[in-house]
Formats: sequence, C-alpha cells, structure tokens
Amino acid sequence: MPIFLNTTDTDFEAAFAAFLTTKREDSPDVDAVVADIIADVRARGDAAVIELTAKFDRLELTPQTLAFTPEEIETECAKVSAEDRAALELAAERIRAYHARQMPEDASWQDDTGATLGWRWGPVSAAGLYVPGGLASYPSSVLMNAIPAKVAGVERLAIAVPTPDGICNPLVLLAARIAGVDEIYRIGGAQAIAALAYGTETIAPVDKITGPGNAFVAAAKRRVFGKVGIDMIAGPSEILVIADRNNEPDWIAVDLLSQAEHDESAQSILITDNADFGQAVTAAVEKRLETLERRQIAGKSWRDFGAVIVVQDMAEAVVLSDRIAPEHLELCVADADAMAVQVKHAGAIFIGAWTPEAIGDYVGGPNHVLPTARSARFSSGLSVMDFVKRTTLSKMTPQALAAIGPAAERLAISESLEAHGLSVRARLDRLNET
Amino acid sequence: MPIFLNTTDTDFEAAFAAFLTTKREDSPDVDAVVADIIADVRARGDAAVIELTAKFDRLELTPQTLAFTPEEIETECAKVSAEDRAALELAAERIRAYHARQMPEDASWQDDTGATLGWRWGPVSAAGLYVPGGLASYPSSVLMNAIPAKVAGVERLAIAVPTPDGICNPLVLLAARIAGVDEIYRIGGAQAIAALAYGTETIAPVDKITGPGNAFVAAAKRRVFGKVGIDMIAGPSEILVIADRNNEPDWIAVDLLSQAEHDESAQSILITDNADFGQAVTAAVEKRLETLERRQIAGKSWRDFGAVIVVQDMAEAVVLSDRIAPEHLELCVADADAMAVQVKHAGAIFIGAWTPEAIGDYVGGPNHVLPTARSARFSSGLSVMDFVKRTTLSKMTPQALAAIGPAAERLAISESLEAHGLSVRARLDRLNET
Repeated sequence: MPIFLNTTDTDFEAAFAAFLTTKREDSPDVDAVVADIIADVRARGDAAVIELTAKFDRLELTPQTLAFTPEEIETECAKVSAEDRAALELAAERIRAYHARQMPEDASWQDDTGATLGWRWGPVSAAGLYVPGGLASYPSSVLMNAIPAKVAGVERLAIAVPTPDGICNPLVLLAARIAGVDEIYRIGGAQAIAALAYGTETIAPVDKITGPGNAFVAAAKRRVFGKVGIDMIAGPSEILVIADRNNEPDWIAVDLLSQAEHDESAQSILITDNADFGQAVTAAVEKRLETLERRQIAGKSWRDFGAVIVVQDMAEAVVLSDRIAPEHLELCVADADAMAVQVKHAGAIFIGAWTPEAIGDYVGGPNHVLPTARSARFSSGLSVMDFVKRTTLSKMTPQALAAIGPAAERLAISESLEAHGLSVRARLDRLNET
Repeated sequence: MPIFLNTTDTDFEAAFAAFLTTKREDSPDVDAVVADIIADVRARGDAAVIELTAKFDRLELTPQTLAFTPEEIETECAKVSAEDRAALELAAERIRAYHARQMPEDASWQDDTGATLGWRWGPVSAAGLYVPGGLASYPSSVLMNAIPAKVAGVERLAIAVPTPDGICNPLVLLAARIAGVDEIYRIGGAQAIAALAYGTETIAPVDKITGPGNAFVAAAKRRVFGKVGIDMIAGPSEILVIADRNNEPDWIAVDLLSQAEHDESAQSILITDNADFGQAVTAAVEKRLETLERRQIAGKSWRDFGAVIVVQDMAEAVVLSDRIAPEHLELCVADADAMAVQVKHAGAIFIGAWTPEAIGDYVGGPNHVLPTARSARFSSGLSVMDFVKRTTLSKMTPQALAAIGPAAERLAISESLEAHGLSVRARLDRLNET
C-alpha cells in the first residue's frame, strides 16, 4: 500500500520528513570497478573497450565495427514504421523549436570609466551522449539529448549505445539520424564513458558527456567530471500530482502510473485537499494495475514509494511540493496558472488537467531530462545551456585603468600578490610619466 | 628554464601535444580519507566537525562558537584600513553591476497548436561558499562567489572559512559583510563541505556549494555532488598572453608573473610572432624575479611550467590558444578586438595591453572564478547562472492535446511504456466522446 498522510495528523511532520529522506535506490558501490575500467581504457584504448564489450554485452567487436556504418544505420532505420517515423519527426521538430529559444545572448557595454565589458557564448566543440541499451533504450531520450546539442552548435556529436547480444533498437538509430548525430558507437557502461572522455585509437575524445545510465555509467561520469563536462547524475525519477476533487480519478491514476512504470524505485505522489478524492484515485490506480503491461514494476513502485498526502488547502500543497522539489509536477487544480507561479522548486510543471506529464516526455517541446531526487532545488533540466560556455570580456582604456587600477593594486597588496599589483602599477606609472 | 617552442620546429606538434598533457599537479588520493570524514560528519554532526577542526586547524570550538557572532565580525572588520575598505567596496560595486546583467529571462509563448510553453528561473534557496584559510585566503574570492549568489536572489548564504590556530583575515570578514553573507563558520576542509551539504545540529544544510579549496575540499565537493550542486573542481590556473613585438616586455613579464606567483603549479604562457620579443620578455621575467616577494613560488612555476611559443603569424596563435583553452587570455596585439572574436575556448579574455589580467582578479567586474586545466572547452566561469535554476512550463489545451497527443501515445507504445500512452489516451477518448 502507498503511504497515506494527512497534514492534520499529529505526527505528520515526522512522517513527512521521514518520507522525504526515504532512500529509494540501493546504489551498489561500483566505484572501484569503474576506476579499474577507466584506467584500462586509458591504457589500452580500443583493445580494452572491445574486451569489456565482449564481457558485458556478449558482443565481439573490432576497431572497424565499434561504430555503426552509414549503411547499417540506413538498414536499421528502414525497419521503422511510417507512423513511428512521423511521431519521432513531430517530436524532434517541437523539441527543436522549444530549445532554439534557449540560446543565450552575448552582451557588450561600456561603463562609466570607459571600460568595455561583456561576454560571448560559444558551443562546446564535441559532445558525447550516452543512451542506455536494452529495456531502457529510449529514442525519445536521444532526441532530448542530441537536439539541444545541435541547436547549441556542437560540431561533433557522438552517441554510445550498448547493443547487448548485438540487439539494437532501430528507433534509437532513427532518432539519432533525425537529430543530426555524427557518430554512433555500439558500446556501453563505464568503458563507453571512458572512451568518450579520454578517447581511443578509433574514438576521438569529446568535451562534454550527457545522458542517463546505470550505476556503472553514473560512477564513471562522476569520475571523468573535470576532464570533460557532464550533465548530472540522474537518480530514480518522480512525479507529484496536485489535484483537487474536480478531476477524473482515472486520469490522475494513469498519470501516477506513467511514472511508476519506469522502474521500481520511481515515485508517484498525489497531494489533494480532498481525502475522498485521494481514495478514489488510489482505487483507480489499483484497477489500472490489474491490466497494465508493466504492472509488476509499476505496482511495486506504487506500493513501496507511492504516497497520497491530504492537505487542508492548496497553499499547504505548494509548501510541501517545494520541500519535495519534484522532477515532474502536475497541477490539476482550479487556477493552475496561479499555482505554477507560486512553485519555487520543480524540474518541470505541467499546467492543468489537459497536460499529462507524458506529453512532456515526448512531444511537448521542453526537455524530459530533468533534475531528480530533490535536485530541482539547485539544478535545471537539460538545455542548450549545457552545450555552450561563456567567455567573459574586459577591455580597459588608459583612463579606465587610471580610475580602477589603484583599487586593484591595493587589493593585490592586501592579498600579498605583489606581481598582481605590479602588473597594474607598471601601466599606471606610464600614464603618470606622460 | 621555461620551455621555448617555435611552430617551425620539425618536432613542434609532438612537443606542443606533450606540453598540453603535462600534468602540473600531483593530486594526492585523499578520497578514502574524505569519504570517512563525510560519513563521520553525517553520523555525528557538530561533534565530528568540532573534533576535526581541533585536529586539522588546532582550534577548539563549541557548537556556540562554530559561527562568528555579529560582534566578532564587527571587531574584525574594524581592523581594516579605510583604503582597503574603499577598494573592496569599489570592487563589490563593479562585480555587482556586471553580474546584475547576467540574470536570465523567463519566457512564455503560445505555439500553433494553442499550447502554452515556456520556462521560469528562480534562485537556489541556500548556498554555501568555501573560502580557503591561511595563505590563500582571498577577500576578492569572497566577493566573486558571494555577489553572484546575492544577485541571483539566494536567501541564505553561508561561508565556511577555516581559521587555523584561530587566525582569521579581517578582509575576508569585511568582504563577506559587504557582499551580504548571512552566516560565517570558522571551519574548513572536507568536514566543512560535509557540514554544508548534509547539515549538522548547528549548521543548516545548503543546496549549492561553490568556492576553491585544497585536495580534500575538491574530493569532498566531488563526493557531495548530487546531494547538493557544486560549481567546479578547480585545478591549478593558467594565463596565456598573446603579444606582438609592439609591447613593453616588462608589462608582459609582470602579467606572466602575476599568474606564476599564485602557486608552483600555475602556468604562464606567452605566444608571440617575434622570437626576439619572446627573449626580451623572458629576460624581463628573470629581472623581476630577482626582487619579487613571491619569487620562490613564481620562479618555480615559471621554470617548471612556463612557456614561450613563437608562431609564424597571429592566426596560428589563435589556433594554439584554442587548443590550450586557457583560463585567462590576454591579447596584446594590434587588433585585439578582432582577435577576441576569433577565440573559441577561453575562460576570460583581456583585450589590449591596457587590460592586465589582475584587473579581472579584483575590480573589472567579470568573475575571477574561471575554468582551469583546459575546462574552458566545456564550462564557464562562475556567474549568476550558478545560483539559479530553471523550471520548464507546459500547458496543453484540449485542441493542443488532440494535435500532438497521438504522436506521444505512439512513441510511448514504441517504448513499451503503456501507462504513458494511457495517460494521453484517457483524455483523447474524452474529447472524442464530446
């Protein structure tokens, strides 16, 4: 049974605090193994990647077959139905349109001393996208990772997607082609992350790695962070639905299940101001669970981590939501727009009952790579910003240096950094001479 | 002697590649120690922090003396000279003005299906800034970290600054007060990072941690990444000066030394199209090194990691600069503005001979926390963006859902995520009923 809380319960605060800190994932400590794998790939390059792929994916590769050839990609893409292709293309078009608006602007201005200040944005030169293989091999994730990179202007975009036993998902390859990916490698795990970060004889290193993965991939990303940029360490995901009684319980139930079906450590939470409505949704979830294809996974997630929280009023709902800082927040309330404005911490907000979260997973336009495990408190979903970086610009005139240089010199001296001060003083002295 | 390369040397490419991969820092592997410290602070809170501070900083604290009191801060600030105070205030004002322009804008628009899409930015609620103690305790870094946070709207800003043997730098406390810091703790090392990330009885946890530190601090930041946001793992820093013969060799020499004096693993590089000028700068560096206060440090950095690279023309200089992706890039050339436009990878550019890099360390306005060790390829200096996060917004109408819902349903089915599809289908069915 999911947890059922009411803010009027005397022990609510303790129960909610415990709920917030519930650990939903038993991350195995694979750090030592991953460190060895990375060292091996750095030392032996292709040979290590090929051996590890044989071991973990039961797939024999050569340096020549590490990457899919254009013909192989073509053959796989041809297997996709016209309907699936059209759906992918609609999704790609909408994701591109949304992300195109995210390109940050350069700036340049002159201040009152005559100094010119500003900044300029530019794309990362090469990016690598990790795409999980097997069950969780999602073409939508390829679009969500690759399109922001291409919109940002990334010149070279490589994908690593493991193909255990040689099995690949044609939709993943088609999504990569639609998004404009340049290279696709049939490798996975920590060895793929190491190959992308450090390069091998066959795989050129990239500057930034994004994309979800298992514990090995996450540990590897954490380790190569600094050598390359990474997006985030994704944890199990969650949805929070805030709904009043004027909703169809079954709609809310399937929305909750659409998160629960991802994996057993996913979390689905309903906050409502009506206990009867909460019960009705719970009943609807149970009914749907009878026939759902992934009822094993979704049922376990719902029983273990699901929650229904009854609040006195919707202001209370927003406060609790901010403490949860959900990855996905659905607002099915009378004035959803007004509530959305009040929310401080959420990865993505879906406003109104006609906006099921699944729209955002595929075709809404915003990115579906979002901060999990309460990290919406400090981080954002994937965007064009992840594939650009800023160079700050400063240009002094002699007059500007005369105006602010003495303060710099003074601070340099106070920090015992004499040469810093001298680099300003040498110029100021010249000004005084003339 | 610094390395002296010429792009016309037959072995230039090999020598430059080796130069690029030279390891300048022997990071001790302190990860196991740091893991223990973090676990200890999580388990025992204040008691662990106090014990570790006694051990590492030879300072006996109690829960009551972990933080500076307002009176203590006042007393320390009163020790600062009027001139230093004025310099700090000028710096703060300019940094604030520059960063105020970085606030990103919210967006909202309606697309052709009638869906409303957009995003909203909001500040991180609480941030922690690490400030190294001892020699490298720089008030300028306090301003550079704290002001962007306050400009972003961070409500609670805590500083951790170790005070070994109880010694603190009054300028650090004054900088914190000028920047609007709310809490100052006299703790450091991995224990400070753990306390900020997980909280103790006395120290409330924060959502984001920024600021430089030693190997222990860096390892701790890497470990708490995910629980909180972090800025970057800073490595030894570097300056690249591109200068033609029409420069005063001594100016360039002090600019190079202003980086070299930071620490022995700092790196100063000159690229010039004139070998004689390169020699003249080298001679000027040697001359300055005779009397420089920090000549031990600067001399070692210059001898071990300094470099003079002679190019055929300035186009070559830009290409090499992008491969180095320097933290600081000074352009002392005829048309520095034009060259700045061509540069792809650099943390900060200082345009023209009247803009010594040290101006950017203190009073220019842009941030001096910049990507080191070639990470300007994929990351940016500290900014307001580090203290805000984005929530994406989607609102469908029934018509919008009718237009794009079927594609979402199709993709959900292709990914075997039935409930995702059902959450769309349930609503589409209602539309078809009416």
